Amino acid sequence: MYKLSIDAMSGDLGSSIVVDACLSFIKSHDDVELYVTGKPEELEKLNVEHIHIVEARDTIPMDAGIMSVRRKKDSSMVKAVTLANEGTTDGVVSCGSTGAFYTSAMLFMKRIEGIEKSCLMAILPTYNEKGVMLLDVGANAENTPEQLHDFALMGHVYAKYMRGITSPQIALLNIGSESKKGDEVHQKAYQLLAQDESIHFIGNIEGRDILDGDADVVVSDGFSGNIALKCCEGTAITLMKLMKESLMTSLKSKIGALFVKDSLYALKDRFDYKSVGGALMMGFIKPVVKAHGASDAKAFGNAMELAYQMVKNDVVGKLKEGLKG
Amino acid sequence: MYKLSIDAMSGDLGSSIVVDACLSFIKSHDDVELYVTGKPEELEKLNVEHIHIVEARDTIPMDAGIMSVRRKKDSSMVKAVTLANEGTTDGVVSCGSTGAFYTSAMLFMKRIEGIEKSCLMAILPTYNEKGVMLLDVGANAENTPEQLHDFALMGHVYAKYMRGITSPQIALLNIGSESKKGDEVHQKAYQLLAQDESIHFIGNIEGRDILDGDADVVVSDGFSGNIALKCCEGTAITLMKLMKESLMTSLKSKIGALFVKDSLYALKDRFDYKSVGGALMMGFIKPVVKAHGASDAKAFGNAMELAYQMVKNDVVGKLKEGLKG
Repeated sequence: MYKLSIDAMSGDLGSSIVVDACLSFIKSHDDVELYVTGKPEELEKLNVEHIHIVEARDTIPMDAGIMSVRRKKDSSMVKAVTLANEGTTDGVVSCGSTGAFYTSAMLFMKRIEGIEKSCLMAILPTYNEKGVMLLDVGANAENTPEQLHDFALMGHVYAKYMRGITSPQIALLNIGSESKKGDEVHQKAYQLLAQDESIHFIGNIEGRDILDGDADVVVSDGFSGNIALKCCEGTAITLMKLMKESLMTSLKSKIGALFVKDSLYALKDRFDYKSVGGALMMGFIKPVVKAHGASDAKAFGNAMELAYQMVKNDVVGKLKEGLKG
Repeated sequence: MYKLSIDAMSGDLGSSIVVDACLSFIKSHDDVELYVTGKPEELEKLNVEHIHIVEARDTIPMDAGIMSVRRKKDSSMVKAVTLANEGTTDGVVSCGSTGAFYTSAMLFMKRIEGIEKSCLMAILPTYNEKGVMLLDVGANAENTPEQLHDFALMGHVYAKYMRGITSPQIALLNIGSESKKGDEVHQKAYQLLAQDESIHFIGNIEGRDILDGDADVVVSDGFSGNIALKCCEGTAITLMKLMKESLMTSLKSKIGALFVKDSLYALKDRFDYKSVGGALMMGFIKPVVKAHGASDAKAFGNAMELAYQMVKNDVVGKLKEGLKG
């Protein structure tokens, strides 16, 4: 049986969507046991086979400062993380705040041996519909070349075993294509990536080309990766708003809008960074999956499915092997 | 008389568009003299009052490596820069490659005293139509807190005297809003900006919010500024392409497209990073203005107008005063 710990309490929408997601997940997966942390009185519906309720009376609210995590050892979030760290479960899912959840993992879960820094990974929509993985998107404010190399290995393993890409194309986010571009950290990272024969390094990539989808994995330091992610997100949001408004400017465009709205809505959904979903936390000894804060039961279920697949495909084990090779 | 040096030879489209732009500029500005560098046999139409032809037999092609600039002292670009540096002219315009033009300025023009590093500035379209200035967008691969402070001063002066913003709102590009966010460089830059009472510092800004237009000037190190600019650009290009395609997916959307295309084209023009135009090179003792490589005569004329306004408004002098204060 695969075992997941589930933080039932930390989301914006309360525990009921998590309860629904858990019940429906257990129904469709007969090889899974869930350890759900939270207030038992809110989780009574979960008194069913294959679900264990783990009492946690404290909650980390969405707007909590990340430093408060330290004092919240009895919270549903920290308990869920701890269960995975101790080996009671094989992975952990929460829809709490990204900062608090990442901090919980940093404080209460070990890193994979050989990985100096954990990181956050996001998957961005691309022109060619393949999507592109970007990491680190902000767990670190600065990184060494060796850490960037670790990010590449983590991206490689995830792309290969979770996204089924046989030989993932890995690029380094930089300010020009030549190997000598960027600061010393990125120049040295370029060399490390180019020398590693276990990955398929395709060179530097500029911000302009990330969404083309030619690279499967884009490696970046946490500072510029965060800025890259948020600039893509901000531009998409701005353009979609303006597009909507521009269709309302004249009678003619309003008429046209009736015909084109389905097509444009589909595009909007694709570039909706909310639905792009939770960032993944990479580098820990167990899969740590964040569902979006405003998750409904379906979105939470998707996050559980992702954690389940990561456990089943032994992504962490594959990464350990890769680090040895 | 205000005097501008004009590089006639370095653009993709040859000297003829520059010749046209010069003739038309002289007609509409009776307080300007032009010093046009290039091959006299291509510039014969410029034998008119207020235009001086300065022979330069060499050309720096658009695809030239920036290192080749060093060996191209007889090029139209370097000569145009040198004329401004020596004081023969008050500013310089070229539509050559950004890299080569910036390198020419670095090598052959002095920096303003008190400015440690020159930089590249771009103006991005925003939701609120005001536009936002972003600097540095890639002249430097890394910067010190003091250099970021200089960028803020340059942005402040430009916004105030060229864009007519009485008290420009200045933000620091970072990975979170709190003053302690980011690496040491950005934390220290935050302090410097917050302490400087001559500017209106509004705090950190995240990538997601740049295009809102709440900040007039966004200050960044060259590395993350370059990534920010190019991610915004790449996302806009990708979305516009997908929008166009999505309107062609069904008969219904094709019909609608006939009605909405004017509105959407207007939006596309606004976010066309080509028409956003040349980056400005800041920190030199004379205005250095780059027209877009594929400029037509009109675009080149706009770049000349910008240089002329910078000279007339004495942007460099204002900056020197600001540095003293």
